[in-house]
Amino acid sequence: MITSSTNSKIKYVRRLQAEKRFRYRENAFVVEGTRWISDLVQLGLPPQMLFTTADWAANGDNTALLEQLPVAAAAVSDPLMAMMSATKTAPGVLAVMPIPQLAIPPRPSLLLVLDEVTNPGNLGTMLRSAGAAGADGILLGPGCVDAYNPKVVRGGMGAQLRLPVQQADWEEIEKELVGMQVWLAAADGDHSYTEVDWHLPSAVIIGNEAQGAAAAADRLATGRLSIPMHAATESLNAAVAASIILFEAARQRHHK
Amino acid sequence: MITSSTNSKIKYVRRLQAEKRFRYRENAFVVEGTRWISDLVQLGLPPQMLFTTADWAANGDNTALLEQLPVAAAAVSDPLMAMMSATKTAPGVLAVMPIPQLAIPPRPSLLLVLDEVTNPGNLGTMLRSAGAAGADGILLGPGCVDAYNPKVVRGGMGAQLRLPVQQADWEEIEKELVGMQVWLAAADGDHSYTEVDWHLPSAVIIGNEAQGAAAAADRLATGRLSIPMHAATESLNAAVAASIILFEAARQRHHK
Repeated sequence: MITSSTNSKIKYVRRLQAEKRFRYRENAFVVEGTRWISDLVQLGLPPQMLFTTADWAANGDNTALLEQLPVAAAAVSDPLMAMMSATKTAPGVLAVMPIPQLAIPPRPSLLLVLDEVTNPGNLGTMLRSAGAAGADGILLGPGCVDAYNPKVVRGGMGAQLRLPVQQADWEEIEKELVGMQVWLAAADGDHSYTEVDWHLPSAVIIGNEAQGAAAAADRLATGRLSIPMHAATESLNAAVAASIILFEAARQRHHK
Repeated sequence: MITSSTNSKIKYVRRLQAEKRFRYRENAFVVEGTRWISDLVQLGLPPQMLFTTADWAANGDNTALLEQLPVAAAAVSDPLMAMMSATKTAPGVLAVMPIPQLAIPPRPSLLLVLDEVTNPGNLGTMLRSAGAAGADGILLGPGCVDAYNPKVVRGGMGAQLRLPVQQADWEEIEKELVGMQVWLAAADGDHSYTEVDWHLPSAVIIGNEAQGAAAAADRLATGRLSIPMHAATESLNAAVAASIILFEAARQRHHK
């Protein structure tokens, strides 16, 4: 059992959790918790490293899960797991995964484009919703939080492994969106999201919740879309707004 | 300017932030940030107490906002504001509000019922979405986090002042839902949320994200509803699922 905080693997994991630059240099990130490990098994993706506490590994279901992974788990003490974990209550299992190299397909049908989404919980939720709605990928524009940041990973619930996520500047985003209708979600948008024909190849741009979208996003948009609300004082969380729009697209597409 | 942490008002605010029981004894809760204060002004709701930092009050827009409130603001030092605030970076303005006594109307058309929703961010998001979708109220079943908990207040963005929120046990919930179709959201639900006729008086029960709904919720439900997803491995955040369902109800109702 690893018990020393100076162990090189422990230090490696802690650095992956803390530093975006280190994650991209190593091309790796950290996933935590039984749900994520079970996703790795289902997707047949082997972790590079695997760590468990004695308590977690003693559970029968967890033992069965470990047996399906082609990597031996290193046992670590509870205090060390707490040091490696990015959560307040460490879940007892943690793995290092390569950053997935999933490409957005050549002629995407539905893309989510994010502009300065800095809240990691919101990005995690949007990754999860985009995957569930059947989007072909997410373009992370300038100023977005990293998709492999520990809090985004926690919120994403495995979406990072299934959905293509691509960092891009506005020039690259423009190229990616050629031939698509591009809808910017805005409180003052003049089209209801339910009036849009989502059977067409479509991109949805979601801006920063507090500041709205950047000028570059506005220029790229072929239209501004809003979600009609009960009263003018009402508003929606940015991740919720993105999810409602993506699932309206999914609804229309399934009805054909 | 108040500078002492032993000042009775400061102690009062801190206790309201920390203790649910104290909030209900005093029938008061704490709101923070310019957005909330601007909501109080718009709704014509006077705070019981109002605190600002010198920096916040020096801003011209903020001064104009303060002038519209019938309560004089007490100036507090930055360290005291940080002590009173429930956020990491105190927003510079904070008010004590009476807990609103908003009743669910006699024959509600759309209600959200929550079962053991313990995540404060999720409850805040659901309050906000329910208000925006035009729900008549929220019933908080057993085991839910308090709607006036500081983190729920932050996520609710003013919804607590506009939307009736009622704590209830399952017996009370059953009485409240008489004459309504009651849909339990469940991953294995056999009705798609888009197939439901949302013109009928409807209640939606959302359970705990990790554990699902309680047996009592299941008994009460007249049907089980799911959100079709792109693949079986996908899932949605509970607050997002609630929001997608409520906005499908709003969409159908607006189309009439």
